[in-house]
Amino acid sequence: MAYHLLQHDRKGAQRLGDAVCHALLTIKHCQRCNTFSEGNICERCASSRRDSTLLCVVETPIDMNMMEQTQSYQGLYYVLMGKISPLDGVGPKDIGLDRLMARVLDGDVQEVILATNYTNEGEATAHYITAMLASKGVRVSRIARGVPVGGELEYVDSGTLAQALRERKAYGG
Amino acid sequence: MAYHLLQHDRKGAQRLGDAVCHALLTIKHCQRCNTFSEGNICERCASSRRDSTLLCVVETPIDMNMMEQTQSYQGLYYVLMGKISPLDGVGPKDIGLDRLMARVLDGDVQEVILATNYTNEGEATAHYITAMLASKGVRVSRIARGVPVGGELEYVDSGTLAQALRERKAYGG
Repeated sequence: MAYHLLQHDRKGAQRLGDAVCHALLTIKHCQRCNTFSEGNICERCASSRRDSTLLCVVETPIDMNMMEQTQSYQGLYYVLMGKISPLDGVGPKDIGLDRLMARVLDGDVQEVILATNYTNEGEATAHYITAMLASKGVRVSRIARGVPVGGELEYVDSGTLAQALRERKAYGG
Repeated sequence: MAYHLLQHDRKGAQRLGDAVCHALLTIKHCQRCNTFSEGNICERCASSRRDSTLLCVVETPIDMNMMEQTQSYQGLYYVLMGKISPLDGVGPKDIGLDRLMARVLDGDVQEVILATNYTNEGEATAHYITAMLASKGVRVSRIARGVPVGGELEYVDSGTLAQALRERKAYGG
């Protein structure tokens, strides 16, 4: 891309450079949900049409977009912008969990939905947040783990199948 | 394979042919769980070390093997050897659900775990079995649906994520 811009599109390169500099100057973190935002509060947090009793905790803005794409969530978010990862030297303080705490206790949040990844780091982060929120009077839930929609047992790994079996639930038909 | 056997290994071909004929003659369906078996009752059904209060319903013997590989299930099985699939003209009678009913009511089954696939056909089959078992005094459960173990939100389809959100559960840390 660099060669193409330098040889064929020097004006485009100028525009790209300006855009990147502009983004660096204007895009900051939303004071409520911590995602990228041009204003102090992002549009989603400012919206009165979202359910402010639900707070979904995700690792990255991309994960937030994935949740939005399901079109089945109307609550608010908190974006960690990271995850606890001891092997990489990232602890609870490094991802600002104290700000998450402040956010939960500040608003009218009744349920915190942990939607961190089902990786070791995501699980560790979910555990830590749950411990932090214990005895704070908010419900803490975790998105379900199991066989994917459309999934066939034959192609599912045994770890997932074992979990799906362990977390089986009463079936109403 | 056919060319290789005919040209290089005619004795092997004879052995293969004999083996297939032998299998056709000796392998039948277990009278309890309906899977392939050399005896009237398969080893698993005959074992006294399995928990006979749990009955896991799967579509195929392969699915049964998958469940066994999780090493986290000690109950018994019922293998449908098919699934309800109206588009292919396969109805409840074609897969012998009446025999499943007899099996459930015959033994000391307390919980039927539906482990049919999360495809349309598998879901239809699970629904039908649940309706059949209603008011028969056995618990009916379904393996969990959601994000696979090790799964990252970024790479999960929205259908699965929506389900995982809908079926979120209280998190104890």
